[in-house]
Amino acid sequence: MKQNSVFPTLSKQYLFQEIQTRRDAFQATNPEKKLLFLGIGDTTQPLAPSIVKSLIQTTQELGTAEKYVGYGPEVGEKQLREKIATVIYHNDFSSDEIFISDGVNSDLLRLMLLLEEGVSVAIQDPTYPAYFDTARIAKDANISFLSITDGPPDLTKAPEGSLVFLCSPNNPTGEAFTHAQYEKMVSIALARKLFIILDVAYREFIRGDFPKSIYEIEGAKKVAIEVGSFSKSSGFSGVRLGWSVVPKELCYENGSPAHSDFHRLFTAVFNGASILSQRAGLQILSPEGEKEITTQIDSYLEQAQLLREALRAKSFSVVGGDQAPYIWVKMENKTSWEGFDYFLKNLGIVVTPGIGFGPAGEGFIRLSGLARPEVISEAISRIQAM
Amino acid sequence: MKQNSVFPTLSKQYLFQEIQTRRDAFQATNPEKKLLFLGIGDTTQPLAPSIVKSLIQTTQELGTAEKYVGYGPEVGEKQLREKIATVIYHNDFSSDEIFISDGVNSDLLRLMLLLEEGVSVAIQDPTYPAYFDTARIAKDANISFLSITDGPPDLTKAPEGSLVFLCSPNNPTGEAFTHAQYEKMVSIALARKLFIILDVAYREFIRGDFPKSIYEIEGAKKVAIEVGSFSKSSGFSGVRLGWSVVPKELCYENGSPAHSDFHRLFTAVFNGASILSQRAGLQILSPEGEKEITTQIDSYLEQAQLLREALRAKSFSVVGGDQAPYIWVKMENKTSWEGFDYFLKNLGIVVTPGIGFGPAGEGFIRLSGLARPEVISEAISRIQAM
Repeated sequence: MKQNSVFPTLSKQYLFQEIQTRRDAFQATNPEKKLLFLGIGDTTQPLAPSIVKSLIQTTQELGTAEKYVGYGPEVGEKQLREKIATVIYHNDFSSDEIFISDGVNSDLLRLMLLLEEGVSVAIQDPTYPAYFDTARIAKDANISFLSITDGPPDLTKAPEGSLVFLCSPNNPTGEAFTHAQYEKMVSIALARKLFIILDVAYREFIRGDFPKSIYEIEGAKKVAIEVGSFSKSSGFSGVRLGWSVVPKELCYENGSPAHSDFHRLFTAVFNGASILSQRAGLQILSPEGEKEITTQIDSYLEQAQLLREALRAKSFSVVGGDQAPYIWVKMENKTSWEGFDYFLKNLGIVVTPGIGFGPAGEGFIRLSGLARPEVISEAISRIQAM
Repeated sequence: MKQNSVFPTLSKQYLFQEIQTRRDAFQATNPEKKLLFLGIGDTTQPLAPSIVKSLIQTTQELGTAEKYVGYGPEVGEKQLREKIATVIYHNDFSSDEIFISDGVNSDLLRLMLLLEEGVSVAIQDPTYPAYFDTARIAKDANISFLSITDGPPDLTKAPEGSLVFLCSPNNPTGEAFTHAQYEKMVSIALARKLFIILDVAYREFIRGDFPKSIYEIEGAKKVAIEVGSFSKSSGFSGVRLGWSVVPKELCYENGSPAHSDFHRLFTAVFNGASILSQRAGLQILSPEGEKEITTQIDSYLEQAQLLREALRAKSFSVVGGDQAPYIWVKMENKTSWEGFDYFLKNLGIVVTPGIGFGPAGEGFIRLSGLARPEVISEAISRIQAM
């Protein structure tokens, strides 16, 4: 059996694995040091009470012969798809354009299956590294980067007919696209026959005047797929639940719709997200759930902003923290990994090196505001004592 | 954007989707007919009490700041991997050779990523149709079939260096491979440099003297990956949990181990099975859980056997029901879909047409013993009244 020839070309480890390895090595030689983890962007607040209640109720139902259910539809329970179409997309889509997933990473892989081997892919830079890895692993993609150092990605530089990965609010920079920026990107995508995959995993963190969805822009349904997640907004990074929107208007260059292919492959390569997660998703999107979630998100954002201000007081150049729980810090005269080591060795704070998010992330680090309040407080104290 | 050229070559619908379409059409024109669903192999017994308890406990923990957890390791929590290594594989593997998944279908897709585009794949025939669809969709695989009409698949007919899909106990025929049959297959696989993916989703249903794992055979670690599931044995088809074993000894023809590639891709394209499912998996593999599960499986097997005997009494030729909850019925002078229609129109019983499991399934139908007891009883009454 021949090895997929892409593997020897990949970096040895996925970013967060690499951070863990370095962190563990440091801790092993400095066992007395209490490390603060602001690296991986993982939630720390407990599940909200009404969501706990919902999960318990579904579990109890599965324990009865009357209410037990096995397989649901591969694409997700109709009630949840309808709820997402209504609550998140204001009935701009029919429920069968919504596909329920176990999370964004899994759906990125499934979405790549729509495309040919060796496909051209252009990726916003810096951004979440899974787009790069998934495109390389799944389709041996030809990848180019669209730097956002001087503004939004310039889609005229994406190869004609290529797939473009966007993320807004962006992980790691914490910044969101404006309506005007989206309009320009959609218009270029239409002209250059691009497919956009927009990751809106942080949409619920938006507090400013930014679109929460690319579909607020006229014509976007013809060029864009949107992937979303309950991981960060609802503490579901361990419980797992997400969705993708594949509009029926989205067509390949041969005029064939991508929607029917995605439905076809979804029903073959996936058996649905956990019924427990799906039923809880209904509660998350209820008025009661949304209220609980908003409170949690507000406190994560506040933590990110406190971190940001502490670093600014030490003359660091920092953005983010307003539309996403991350802050993005310029390390003057340092590479990203030097910045990582600097925070680790001097402050005992584990951050994420910007280079892990793409070439344009070099010289930056990312800090997450998703940590426990006592960890954030201690990190701020250590920064202030620098 | 170009369409993946494999899609226009696929059958329009995945098997179980097609059955649902035909079933709904029949019900729409015969609204008074009470249909009995013995088609899709889905569990119907409620989750066992100790599993319900475990799911509730984890949920409650996730509702507290002290015990909340977000992302776990992508490959699964160490405790569960160790438990599977110990309880299922008798410490024949280290825990890092076990990968926890959200189910077999998802992992089949991930496993295909190890291989090159256009890979040669040989599939036991008839068997679970997801192997075919996944290999086609993921890798535009060149597929050949290994008929089991006259015994176990003849692996000398698999192209040298190809991937071979096996399933034991087999869905749909309900039959399991013997130790001698496995030995022969492993020996041929070693000689012909084949990769085997063995699906043991029904391993817990084995009651006779058959290996529950291919690794009981010497040398199997060099050629075989095993995929397993909690769906059928523990009623987790909706809750979602499975695993794959990728032995460190398994190498490509270039001598490079597949294990490190699988680990690399797993951490990039998947974010782990639900923590709720994983913690419950520990309970399933405890002595208390295993006892509950065994009782459920026994009753499913008994139902399959009762169905089998009712059909034999009507002179049908039937196998299965001893090592898996399915029975496999020869329809004399009928195609599979004619058999499907015959059972639907004359008995109001929805079955699965054998052709959906591969060319050698033509002329057969599959009935599932996983239905509710009252459904099985009513089906038997209708068969007896034929």
